[in-house]
Amino acid sequence: MADLPSQPIYVDHNATTPPLPEVVRAMSEALTVAYGNPSSGHRQGEPARRLLRNARETLQRCLETPEEHFVFTGSGTEANNLALHSLARHSDCIITSAIEHSSILRSAERLQAQGKKVAHIGVSADGVVDLDALRQTLMTNPRAAISVQWINNETGVLQPIGEIAALARTHGALVHIDAAQAIGKTNASLKALDPDFISLTAHKFNGPTGVGALYARRPELIHPLCVGGNQQDGRHAGTENIAGIAGMQCALERRYAHLSEAITHMGTLRDTFESIMIEKCPWVHVNGSQERRVCNTSNLRFQDIDGQALIGRLDALGIYCSQSSACTAGRPEPSYVLCAMGLSEAQAYASVRFSFGITSTQQEIELAAKTVANEAERLKRIFA
Amino acid sequence: MADLPSQPIYVDHNATTPPLPEVVRAMSEALTVAYGNPSSGHRQGEPARRLLRNARETLQRCLETPEEHFVFTGSGTEANNLALHSLARHSDCIITSAIEHSSILRSAERLQAQGKKVAHIGVSADGVVDLDALRQTLMTNPRAAISVQWINNETGVLQPIGEIAALARTHGALVHIDAAQAIGKTNASLKALDPDFISLTAHKFNGPTGVGALYARRPELIHPLCVGGNQQDGRHAGTENIAGIAGMQCALERRYAHLSEAITHMGTLRDTFESIMIEKCPWVHVNGSQERRVCNTSNLRFQDIDGQALIGRLDALGIYCSQSSACTAGRPEPSYVLCAMGLSEAQAYASVRFSFGITSTQQEIELAAKTVANEAERLKRIFA
Repeated sequence: MADLPSQPIYVDHNATTPPLPEVVRAMSEALTVAYGNPSSGHRQGEPARRLLRNARETLQRCLETPEEHFVFTGSGTEANNLALHSLARHSDCIITSAIEHSSILRSAERLQAQGKKVAHIGVSADGVVDLDALRQTLMTNPRAAISVQWINNETGVLQPIGEIAALARTHGALVHIDAAQAIGKTNASLKALDPDFISLTAHKFNGPTGVGALYARRPELIHPLCVGGNQQDGRHAGTENIAGIAGMQCALERRYAHLSEAITHMGTLRDTFESIMIEKCPWVHVNGSQERRVCNTSNLRFQDIDGQALIGRLDALGIYCSQSSACTAGRPEPSYVLCAMGLSEAQAYASVRFSFGITSTQQEIELAAKTVANEAERLKRIFA
Repeated sequence: MADLPSQPIYVDHNATTPPLPEVVRAMSEALTVAYGNPSSGHRQGEPARRLLRNARETLQRCLETPEEHFVFTGSGTEANNLALHSLARHSDCIITSAIEHSSILRSAERLQAQGKKVAHIGVSADGVVDLDALRQTLMTNPRAAISVQWINNETGVLQPIGEIAALARTHGALVHIDAAQAIGKTNASLKALDPDFISLTAHKFNGPTGVGALYARRPELIHPLCVGGNQQDGRHAGTENIAGIAGMQCALERRYAHLSEAITHMGTLRDTFESIMIEKCPWVHVNGSQERRVCNTSNLRFQDIDGQALIGRLDALGIYCSQSSACTAGRPEPSYVLCAMGLSEAQAYASVRFSFGITSTQQEIELAAKTVANEAERLKRIFA
């Protein structure tokens, strides 16, 4: 029997990541030095104004966006809400996929209830958006807007956003990329893609929760959700989250200073984890395309096992993973992402997501894999 | 001539307040200990879940609200947007005043553009909401909802919210109180008032920017602005700002542990400031009711002087104050609050707001008053 972990092992980095110590320090410093209101005309507002400028510069530099137009939001969810709310203003039909984050799907539902046409594109068994269906939908909806995620939060599958952006351009459609799970986990550049909107959130790359951003190629297309003062040129009223923005900037800067190493590190851990799992439990399947996949995510299907039972046992042993998005974790439903890929409800319930981070170590991931394999075998005997 | 300040003197606490050192520590600790996603089912989510529970308990205990239903938001502005968005769902007419914060006025404008009836109640020369006009409007609009601020951000005038809440009850109208400037500056209890909604924001009581809350007596009346995951019972989707909420809780707890002392301290400073000012410049007027006024705010009218010129000189000397709300500071317009009170545009432009905080000291406020008086006299000679 494998050793049990003496310290908890966190393998749920797609839900959230621990803020780096330097992020915590940057936030403390911002709270102390830049406490003025950035909207204040006097000099006490200047450090906060400078901080906002620097953060936008860092975002543009790291993400290689053509423009420096970033609206700071309170979460990735809020950035997605703002994006859809804005797309709806400038299109007759919102085209999205069946496997988007709940913030996109719920926003689309709300727009639909208000009379906006919404089309959901299906995905292949591998979890990849159906480009033919997208093309067809674009052809029959002349003034459309597209919202797709770059990387799926549950499976880690990379969507063909290059092709999607090209299709959008051909058909004159606006395009929004939900990059919440992509930033800091891929070194693909956003420069060539040149999308209209990009959503991101700090707590997926070792920044704090409570802060995200929406990039807009043409900021005048943003239709605010929150109105009031003239902050952020009126595109998101309310005094800015100075500490959170400082934390996001620091986290992004750190990640991009060592981006390739971070990707290699997480990829090695994921491969180690999966090879131990497959070796010990050859009956386990990997959900989603293995070719088109982000470095850090392993969504495994433990055929005939109740995934929640496995997660519960692992939780008791100090190994923290999850079944689907944390944003939908409270709901006793099978993953709609896996179901859209053609898995049965039972198969979706039998699946568990493991996601690794830059703070994960080889040793803990090996131990986690062995423990998961042991517990899975044990449950297999019980469920058999 | 008075001594010049060797250190900057910040007298713009209604714009924002410096976070207390213990607030900064509480946030750093939350970022380190409670980094899990509160929506995660596993144990790593537990510290964050506990933090959210504790914060709600603290809010209820300090504010003495009958219920523990607080929706955490990204700002006071967002809490106000959420309140008006929700009121509009459950009423045929929104009644508000002419001197509300821009987040209320812009939200009301947006609702009006969508076809909702909106009525703006005027104020007296003292800056107090006209109760007779409110009563009349309630009588002619049977299914109305009221949104008023407890304390005006520019003048510090206290609104008769007890009478307003009683009127609302009589007429079966929902009532929202924008308490952004009131929390921690008055010891009046919210218990007896029992309003339907209350907005607050942490950075007005020495907490961080980027976090606020909306209290709801009946949370089912909340109509979300931001949809997606099931966070906050679906009333505000998006992973919660754990550090910000920890900071808000700490700031509120500290303030309420010494609330009477804080109010006395700020009141003494305000009275000191005004008595020096009036003694040295008897031609200066106090804007707004002096009887019904919060402890920390002094809005002064420097007849025939350009307030911006005075603020500019003071800024150069290291004394930081402002003309109106920081949320509207970017706009080259006279204060709509002062104009609604009957001041001419010239009188509004001649007015400057000084606001004091718990971190202000007697010595610096005396020095500030003397410097302001000297500069005002100097400008009076130039403008004469």
